[in-house]
Amino acid sequence: MADLALLNLTEALEALEKGTATSVALTEACLARIETHNPSVNAFIRLDAEEALKAAQESDRERKAGRLKGRLHGIPLAHKDMFDRKGKVSTGGSKILQDRVATQTSTLLERLDAEGAIDLGALNMSEFAAGPTGHNVHHGDCRNAYNHDHISGGSSSGSGAAVGARLVFGALGSDTGGSIRLPAAFNGLTGLKATYGRITRHGAVPRSWSLDHVGPLARSARDAALIYQAIAGADPRDPSTADQPAVGGIPFEGGSVRGLRVGVPSEKDLATVDPQVRDALEASLKVLEGLGAVLVPVNLPDLKPIYFTAETIIKSEAGAMHREWLRTRPQDYAAHVRVRIEAGLAIPATSYIDALRQRSHLTAAFLSDVMGKVDVLHLPTMPIPVPKIADTNVEGAGGEKVLELVGRITQFTRPISLLGLPAVTVPCGFDTAGLPIAFQLVGKPFAEARILVAADQFQQKTDFHRQAPTIARTAS
Amino acid sequence: MADLALLNLTEALEALEKGTATSVALTEACLARIETHNPSVNAFIRLDAEEALKAAQESDRERKAGRLKGRLHGIPLAHKDMFDRKGKVSTGGSKILQDRVATQTSTLLERLDAEGAIDLGALNMSEFAAGPTGHNVHHGDCRNAYNHDHISGGSSSGSGAAVGARLVFGALGSDTGGSIRLPAAFNGLTGLKATYGRITRHGAVPRSWSLDHVGPLARSARDAALIYQAIAGADPRDPSTADQPAVGGIPFEGGSVRGLRVGVPSEKDLATVDPQVRDALEASLKVLEGLGAVLVPVNLPDLKPIYFTAETIIKSEAGAMHREWLRTRPQDYAAHVRVRIEAGLAIPATSYIDALRQRSHLTAAFLSDVMGKVDVLHLPTMPIPVPKIADTNVEGAGGEKVLELVGRITQFTRPISLLGLPAVTVPCGFDTAGLPIAFQLVGKPFAEARILVAADQFQQKTDFHRQAPTIARTAS
Repeated sequence: MADLALLNLTEALEALEKGTATSVALTEACLARIETHNPSVNAFIRLDAEEALKAAQESDRERKAGRLKGRLHGIPLAHKDMFDRKGKVSTGGSKILQDRVATQTSTLLERLDAEGAIDLGALNMSEFAAGPTGHNVHHGDCRNAYNHDHISGGSSSGSGAAVGARLVFGALGSDTGGSIRLPAAFNGLTGLKATYGRITRHGAVPRSWSLDHVGPLARSARDAALIYQAIAGADPRDPSTADQPAVGGIPFEGGSVRGLRVGVPSEKDLATVDPQVRDALEASLKVLEGLGAVLVPVNLPDLKPIYFTAETIIKSEAGAMHREWLRTRPQDYAAHVRVRIEAGLAIPATSYIDALRQRSHLTAAFLSDVMGKVDVLHLPTMPIPVPKIADTNVEGAGGEKVLELVGRITQFTRPISLLGLPAVTVPCGFDTAGLPIAFQLVGKPFAEARILVAADQFQQKTDFHRQAPTIARTAS
Repeated sequence: MADLALLNLTEALEALEKGTATSVALTEACLARIETHNPSVNAFIRLDAEEALKAAQESDRERKAGRLKGRLHGIPLAHKDMFDRKGKVSTGGSKILQDRVATQTSTLLERLDAEGAIDLGALNMSEFAAGPTGHNVHHGDCRNAYNHDHISGGSSSGSGAAVGARLVFGALGSDTGGSIRLPAAFNGLTGLKATYGRITRHGAVPRSWSLDHVGPLARSARDAALIYQAIAGADPRDPSTADQPAVGGIPFEGGSVRGLRVGVPSEKDLATVDPQVRDALEASLKVLEGLGAVLVPVNLPDLKPIYFTAETIIKSEAGAMHREWLRTRPQDYAAHVRVRIEAGLAIPATSYIDALRQRSHLTAAFLSDVMGKVDVLHLPTMPIPVPKIADTNVEGAGGEKVLELVGRITQFTRPISLLGLPAVTVPCGFDTAGLPIAFQLVGKPFAEARILVAADQFQQKTDFHRQAPTIARTAS
C-alpha cells in the first residue's frame, strides 16, 4: 500500500476530495513516518498526536457533512516552534521560553485552523531563530532529510527536515536572513519569503521586528501557495501588515513565463558560487528560457553593505528583545547564540538609526538599478553545497571558520530580507553527495503571484522537487 | 489710516476680496512694521522684501484678471528658517547650514505658493530647533512681541514673535516637544500641532524624525485653519504622511461645542501650575461650559515616562543626524546645543528601540484611559508665566536651573508630541506682567477639525486673541 504521506499537499487534497483518503488516514500516515524517521532527523520539538487525530476525525465528519472549512481542510501540517497556540508552549528553540504557556493563539495558526488544517505540533529550530545551520544545544541538532550527516539548514530547521522527510505536508517557518529559504533549499523544498509586511507575525516569537518574515515550506510551488493564501493579508494585530494590496488568487492554470524578463547576475556577482551550484543554476536558466522567459543580464550592487546594514538592525533589535534575559539568565543561552545577541547591546542608537535610513536608500537603489529592467531576479539560494554538520559545529570547527561559513551560507538570502522583496526558493538539482541545490526567484514588492507562477512553470517542466530523499522513496 | 498689518489673516482676505486692500498694500504694511519693530523682536533671519513685493504685484494682477490661485491668495506670510526654498539657504537657526543652498523647494512652501501666499522670508528659531526659549547665539535672541524682556518661546521663536508683533499674517513653525505651541502661547497666538503624519516634513530641516510635526502659528483658529488646509495631506515625499484620512473642510459656520466632552485633569495633575495660569485655565473652562461643553474629570497618567521616552527618541535621532558635524565642526554649535545633541551619541540602540516600543504602549494607554471618555482634553500649554530672557540665559542663570526650567516649560507639550495627538493652543488670559496665557485642546488622532472648531467657538465668545501687544495697538 502506498504511503499516503509521500503525496504532496495538492495530491493529498485531491485524495480527500475524491474520497481515496481521509484526514485520519493522512494523519496516521504522517504519525507513522514521524515515529520511524523523526529520531533520525530530529524535526519535532513537540508532537501533538492525540489532538491531531481528534482534529482529523472531526475534519472527516465535517467533510462527510459537506462542511469544508477552507482550502486546507484535513491536511496535516506542523510548524516551527515559535507560533503561539493558547495553552501550549512555543519554545522558540530556547530554554528561556520553555515554561511560557501562550495565553492566545497567533493569527497565523488561527488562520490555518480556520482553513481546516490539522496541526501536528511544533518543529525544531535554531535557538531564538539565530543561526542558518539547524544546530541547537537544547533540543538537539536537526538533520537533513536527504543525508543525516548534513545540516538541515536554519533557522526553520525542523520545518525543512519534516517536510523534506515527508513527515507532514507543509510547515510554517520564518525568515529574517534566509531562515525559510535555506532549510527549504537544503531539503529539496519550495519555500516562500513573501514581501515584508505581507504576512502577519502576531503571536510569533520575534528575531528582529524590522526584518522578520513568516511563510511556508512545502513540496511544490502550488503547495506553498495554498498555505500562503491561507495566512497572507492585513492583520490589525500586526501593524507592519497594514499597507498592502489585496491577496489575490495565484493564476497557476494558464500560467506562463513567456516574455518574463529574468535578471541574471554577472560572472563577477557569482564569483563565490561553487561550480556544482553554478551548473545547476545555469541549467535552470536554460529551462526558463526554453519556456519563453527572456534572460536579461544585470549587475548586482555590492551585497556587503546591504548584508551589514541588515546585521546592524538584527543585532540591535535582538539586543533590545533579549536584554533583560541576558542580564538575568545568560547561562540559559547556548554560548554561541548568547555571544551573537549580546553584540547588539554595544550598538549605538545612531548606528541603528543610520542602518534603518540606509535601508530606504539601498532598497530604492536596488529597485531602480537591478529590478528596473526585469520582472524577476534569478539568484542562488546558497552559493555552496549543503555542508556537513561536522563542518558547521561551532565547538569543533573553530569560531572564525564557522562565522565565515555563516556569512557564505546567507550571502544571497540576507540581503533580500533587508530589501523586503518577495523571494521563492526552487529545487533545481543535486550535488555529488546527493544534497539538493536551489535557485531563488526574487520579485518586486507584492509580486508573490508572479514568482510562484514562474516557480510552478519550472516545476511543470522538471521534477527535482519530486525527487524525494531515500527515506521517503519506499513505503515505511 | 489704519495699519493693514494689524488685521488678522481672515480679515486681510476679506479686504482683498472686497478690494479695500491689495496684496501690495498688505505687503508694504508688513514691511513697514518689520522695519520698525524687527530690531526689537529680532524675528527675521532673512527678509526677501523685493521678491515679496514682486510676488504681491503679480498676485494683484492675477486677482484683477480673476485668476485666484487658492485660499491664501495675496497674503504675506513668513516661515521658520527650516523650510527649503530652491536657491535659498535654510539655516535651521544654525551656523552649520549657513552656506547650504537648497536645490529644491519643500512641499510645504510649494503648497503655500500654490495657494497664492506671499513669502516674506525666513524667521528666527532655536539652533536646529533645540530649545523652547528662543535663545540663539548665531542670530541673536528672539524677543516676545508683548514684552521684549521676555522670551518669545521656541523653537519657532521668530514665527511667534513675527505673527504676535503683526509683522506677517501667519507663519509656519515646527513642533517636536512644544515648538509651535509654546511660541504661539507666549505671543498670544493660536498654534496648531496636527496629528503626527498629518503634514509633510519634506524639505524641512529635521530635529527628530519620529516626533517632528510642522504647522501654523496665526492670530485666530480660523487663520490657522486656512494655513493648515493649504499644507495638510499625504505627500509621497514624506512616507510618514502616507496613512491618513482625507483633510476635509473645517466646519466653523454652524460650529458648536454643545455636548462636547472636555476632559479636565485633576488637582494632582495640575499641582505644578502657577496660580495665575490656573485662574486663566479655570476661566476658560467656564466659558466652554457656558457654551454647552460638558466638563469630564480625568486623571492623567504620570507624564514623566512619556516625557523621557520622547527624550530618548529625540536625543538618539538628533545624534544620528548630527554625528558627522559633531565630529568635524563641534565648535560651530552653541555650546549648550552641542552638549544636548552629543548626549544622543551615548544612547544604546536597545534603549532607543525600547523607547519606540514604549511609545506604542503609552499611546494606546493614553487613548484608552484618558481620551476614552472625552472628545478633547483641556491642558495648560505652559504651567508658568512667560519667563524673562534673563531667567533663561544658559550662560547666566546656571545650567541646572535652566534645565529645570526647560523641563517645566515643556512639561505639558512634549508628552503630547510623543503621543502624536493633535493639539491647538488658544490664548485665554494675561499674567500680571502682561504676557499671554493659553490652554491646549488635545484631540484624538486626526481630529484637527474638532479642536479647531472648539477653539473658534471660544474665540467667538472671548477676545484674548485680539488683544494685540502694545507695539501693535497704534498705527506704525
